[in-house]
Amino acid sequence: MTASDQERWTAASPLLADLYQFTMLQAYFDRRMFTPAVFELFVRKLPAVRNFLLVAGLEQAIEYLRTLRFEAHEIAALRATGLFHDAFLGWLAELRFTGDVDALPEGTVAFPHEPLLRVTAPLPEAQLVESRLVNLVHFATTIASKAARCVLAAPGKQLVDFGMRRAHGSEAGLLAARASFLAGFSGTATTLAHPAFGIPVFGTMAHSFVQAHDCEIDAFEHFVDSHRGAIVLLIDTYDTVAGAHRVVELARRRPDKTIAAVRIDSGDLGLLARQVRYVLDGAGFTNIGIFASGGLDEHLVQSLVAGGAPIDGYGIGTSLDVAADHPALDCAYKLQEYAGRPRRKRSPGKATWPGAKQVFRLRASSGELEHDVLALADEAHRGEPLLVPVLRRGELVAELPSLEASRERAASELRALPPQLRSLRAAEPYRVEIASSLAALAARLDAEPH
Amino acid sequence: MTASDQERWTAASPLLADLYQFTMLQAYFDRRMFTPAVFELFVRKLPAVRNFLLVAGLEQAIEYLRTLRFEAHEIAALRATGLFHDAFLGWLAELRFTGDVDALPEGTVAFPHEPLLRVTAPLPEAQLVESRLVNLVHFATTIASKAARCVLAAPGKQLVDFGMRRAHGSEAGLLAARASFLAGFSGTATTLAHPAFGIPVFGTMAHSFVQAHDCEIDAFEHFVDSHRGAIVLLIDTYDTVAGAHRVVELARRRPDKTIAAVRIDSGDLGLLARQVRYVLDGAGFTNIGIFASGGLDEHLVQSLVAGGAPIDGYGIGTSLDVAADHPALDCAYKLQEYAGRPRRKRSPGKATWPGAKQVFRLRASSGELEHDVLALADEAHRGEPLLVPVLRRGELVAELPSLEASRERAASELRALPPQLRSLRAAEPYRVEIASSLAALAARLDAEPH
Repeated sequence: MTASDQERWTAASPLLADLYQFTMLQAYFDRRMFTPAVFELFVRKLPAVRNFLLVAGLEQAIEYLRTLRFEAHEIAALRATGLFHDAFLGWLAELRFTGDVDALPEGTVAFPHEPLLRVTAPLPEAQLVESRLVNLVHFATTIASKAARCVLAAPGKQLVDFGMRRAHGSEAGLLAARASFLAGFSGTATTLAHPAFGIPVFGTMAHSFVQAHDCEIDAFEHFVDSHRGAIVLLIDTYDTVAGAHRVVELARRRPDKTIAAVRIDSGDLGLLARQVRYVLDGAGFTNIGIFASGGLDEHLVQSLVAGGAPIDGYGIGTSLDVAADHPALDCAYKLQEYAGRPRRKRSPGKATWPGAKQVFRLRASSGELEHDVLALADEAHRGEPLLVPVLRRGELVAELPSLEASRERAASELRALPPQLRSLRAAEPYRVEIASSLAALAARLDAEPH
Repeated sequence: MTASDQERWTAASPLLADLYQFTMLQAYFDRRMFTPAVFELFVRKLPAVRNFLLVAGLEQAIEYLRTLRFEAHEIAALRATGLFHDAFLGWLAELRFTGDVDALPEGTVAFPHEPLLRVTAPLPEAQLVESRLVNLVHFATTIASKAARCVLAAPGKQLVDFGMRRAHGSEAGLLAARASFLAGFSGTATTLAHPAFGIPVFGTMAHSFVQAHDCEIDAFEHFVDSHRGAIVLLIDTYDTVAGAHRVVELARRRPDKTIAAVRIDSGDLGLLARQVRYVLDGAGFTNIGIFASGGLDEHLVQSLVAGGAPIDGYGIGTSLDVAADHPALDCAYKLQEYAGRPRRKRSPGKATWPGAKQVFRLRASSGELEHDVLALADEAHRGEPLLVPVLRRGELVAELPSLEASRERAASELRALPPQLRSLRAAEPYRVEIASSLAALAARLDAEPH
């Protein structure tokens, strides 16, 4: 396979889907099963150490639906499998997403069984998009939910995403920057996130920069000469406290330059930060901040914060970008209604609530979340309906909120969390009530033959 | 931001890099630090439940290096940060990767501190590529190493990658299919992996297909009518044993069609498989196989195999595609030599072995691995040198092995593993000896001032 062959198969291809989507679609096509279906994307249950979800990824999901189409080489690739006939492939080449989407806005706090996104579309369209919709929304929500824990662990601190190199591939690296920014991070080290999403980018030097010079002070001085932004000097390549003294030496010698911070990337961060703070303050450089990184997660950050470590900001990498403790959520995209009839999967441990649904949220007068009600979409209920119309007949109902607006929504949602859900430890689950109408429908379906 | 704006920022952009690569590069440019540097990519230590690594991702890494270049809009995006001056940006626009790469071939078994890949190139080039090289090789090696455990757990069984939907984004979904195939899986459910890499694709129907019909038998019959490949019927939507009886009924009624297998995706898979096998065999359909899926990992598969479950193949999804127990490895890309002088990072817990290195592997006469020696690249040593030349001055030394050849190499490497390393549990670590020359060099560098 040559380079140009491979480039044609970009990750954004609609062939990034499970094969069974296409084999099912051909069967639907053969029987003209084009009646509208309702599918919902939701999380079945939370890991013990996630007290809530922070929803993200809707913008990418909607972009995928709006641009969905098969190019000639993609149709040819399907033909080459020998599984599909020409009438079906001709129809597929013309397929566009013409359905409706209702969804929780990005930055909304959500809980198990609540639809993050509902698709109402002709059965084949709604089926086809399953794999990629889950792939996009699951990942972004996984990372935003992890990032929200970091934000809750370090109130008022600057948090920066450092994880692209160990993220799972290119899209994960880029979209982890977006999801963590949405959750309240200040920015990312991933350069591409700036042009792609307008996210502030951070970063100055690696250990290799220091090591490429014969001595540390030369490296610092050289960097200070060349750099045009806020200067952050990495001081742990050889000996952190000695590095801090070199920063003082340089800052005295070069009053023309402003050193914004030093970074410590290894060792006992709390202890070293105190020692470095002592060196800097003793020399009168109280304005030079301390930034810490290196194997951090929300628990370590919380313990540094609780211990009063004089650290102004944290770079969080791998643990964030792969959501290391729980890299996947039990997320599903399920048929809830077809041809006007509610459907229910009854497999053990995987049963779903049938029908098109809405989430109603009830709040205290302070705005704090009290409980949610999962109800049928067409019933009236107390509380705020959370799913909002996004697409109608394949077209945007209104422009999606900006990333900044979604970030503000997330901040406001995190403030409205009940105190026990803000803990990094497992809390009593938030109450999601099943409306009696929904419970009755499920019972009725269970009594039907199949 | 419009759709077309976002499309320009594809994941393959060279801006998918940490910002500090560019700030360091500008400093290197300002001082004309263009002398060759040696960086090595390696894993510092293995998680307790990984006894070895299976190397993957080299093809994508080499493709990245060979096509690395900045387009005008990417240079403009860097300019817009305000951090970079025009002389540097003009130079960056012309930058190509002109260096050398030596690497372990894909499908090689490797251990901590062994370079998976060594880059020898002018300092800025070798530095710039850090983030994306790690991003590609780390992910592929993480997944191939996880997949190898599944392969060892289920000798002779068909294993299929089912994980794209919960993989972390598009590239992860596609490249997990490649890494698991390389490790010995039979194929994947991810359609795109077929045209992109020639990997066999599997898949027939989801629960939604069954639910979209008024009764299960209609769904099965409809599918049998439309499908042109090997027919696998999903039988656990309502009641698995009842589903098996319906398959028998259909198989009797439609002798013109061959049902290859049934799939069970929930419940007690071992028990259900025995019950289903009993139903199928009792009706004379001994040739209909049983395929299992649903929350499987290598431990569950091993226990099903050990328990004698009559299961012919397994779909492994989330646990594989996110390497759920250890979604990241402690992988680094470190400067080992610059301007002809070896360099050593000494940060606590992150010290590296200096200099350009080679891995020599010693085997028993049976071919079984005995131990490795980590030595300097320019010294002669007993054993097989594992890193081979891949790029010289930016050009391929020879065509890379095909995916099929790498898969055969992986199979042969897994056969050559000492028995204790084949266990899913933590084994006594494999011996990687540090050559005396290398130890002496490290000691000498430690004694130098900095």
